[in-house]
Amino acid sequence: MRLRNKPWAKDKLESYPQYVVANPADHKGKWHEVFGNNHPLHIEIGTGKGRFLLGMAKANPDINYIGIELYESVIVSALDRLIEEELPNFKLMNVNAVDLRDFFEKGDVDRVYLNFSDPWPKKRHEKRRLTYQSFLKIYEDILVDKGEIHFKTDNQGLFESSLMSYSEYGLILKYISLDLHNSDFEGNIMTEYEEKFSSRGSRIYRSEAQFR
Amino acid sequence: MRLRNKPWAKDKLESYPQYVVANPADHKGKWHEVFGNNHPLHIEIGTGKGRFLLGMAKANPDINYIGIELYESVIVSALDRLIEEELPNFKLMNVNAVDLRDFFEKGDVDRVYLNFSDPWPKKRHEKRRLTYQSFLKIYEDILVDKGEIHFKTDNQGLFESSLMSYSEYGLILKYISLDLHNSDFEGNIMTEYEEKFSSRGSRIYRSEAQFR
Repeated sequence: MRLRNKPWAKDKLESYPQYVVANPADHKGKWHEVFGNNHPLHIEIGTGKGRFLLGMAKANPDINYIGIELYESVIVSALDRLIEEELPNFKLMNVNAVDLRDFFEKGDVDRVYLNFSDPWPKKRHEKRRLTYQSFLKIYEDILVDKGEIHFKTDNQGLFESSLMSYSEYGLILKYISLDLHNSDFEGNIMTEYEEKFSSRGSRIYRSEAQFR
Repeated sequence: MRLRNKPWAKDKLESYPQYVVANPADHKGKWHEVFGNNHPLHIEIGTGKGRFLLGMAKANPDINYIGIELYESVIVSALDRLIEEELPNFKLMNVNAVDLRDFFEKGDVDRVYLNFSDPWPKKRHEKRRLTYQSFLKIYEDILVDKGEIHFKTDNQGLFESSLMSYSEYGLILKYISLDLHNSDFEGNIMTEYEEKFSSRGSRIYRSEAQFR
């Protein structure tokens, strides 16, 4: 994604603490207090402009969602949408995924979504891929037992390396589609990227992987 | 594959015991005697007319190959090729894959090849797929430790279900290509099916899965 410099973004994010979690480490182990209920918590890592998770939050009012995005200039667009929609089950967090264990303890999170993550195609950058072994360890450390990672991408190389990484880690692949938009999968909610790439004829790959 | 009735096939197979192993159970645990050396043994299950394994045997004289095929009327075509080529490192076996443990003991086989296996697309037939859990158990029981299954198919559904089956069994996916003919994989030897399907524009999927 091309990043535009938005010097006002940081201030805007801080102005909406009801939507953008201000001090996420304070809520470790007690996220139900933030949402005021005991519903399951699903997080998306690299939530971008938030379209996918907003759609999920609308479709599933009994699930809590947190969209995690590193870039202020991007997550501020998700905030704009959230201000319009006022969804009680959707929050944002402007943090780095490598620090997730500072904010969530084992069992806090029921599911991780990864959508159209940066493919980092060069071998020397493979450790930066969000499905690399070290990230899987982070997800395992914050997920419930038998927690799941749901992943979509149009990038063939990233999908191949992710399936290999999952199997090396011992994850069970519960679902694989090698052509999501021509499959019988129901209820797919598209991301911005997904709509753009699939309209250009790209295949969309999708998997659900479960920790043992 | 359309099967033609060839009533003479059985007799012909029996006429060439130097190529078609007559009593495979007799060689269990001592296949090196059959080949007269201690080279690794790779088998292909569903070898069809034998084009893939013949190419492999020519390219790798220090590996022994056995092509296993249930249908007499098909394996007889592989025999015809073998008679022409006279390869000392290639044998055929006209047996059913479900009986492999009668012919091989643990460690007899170094690698299993599956190429364009019958997809058995209906859910009620999934147990017949050669990558179903019960078949993986058979392969594990005859393979060396950390033995591998190398698999190619143009059938998307079969490839998806195979990857799921592998991961459920705990196999490690060492290699995946979701578009083999547009990948950097070198030394691919095509089967009859592969040439036909890929020339029609079908993607070829390929994996290497290793037992833990």
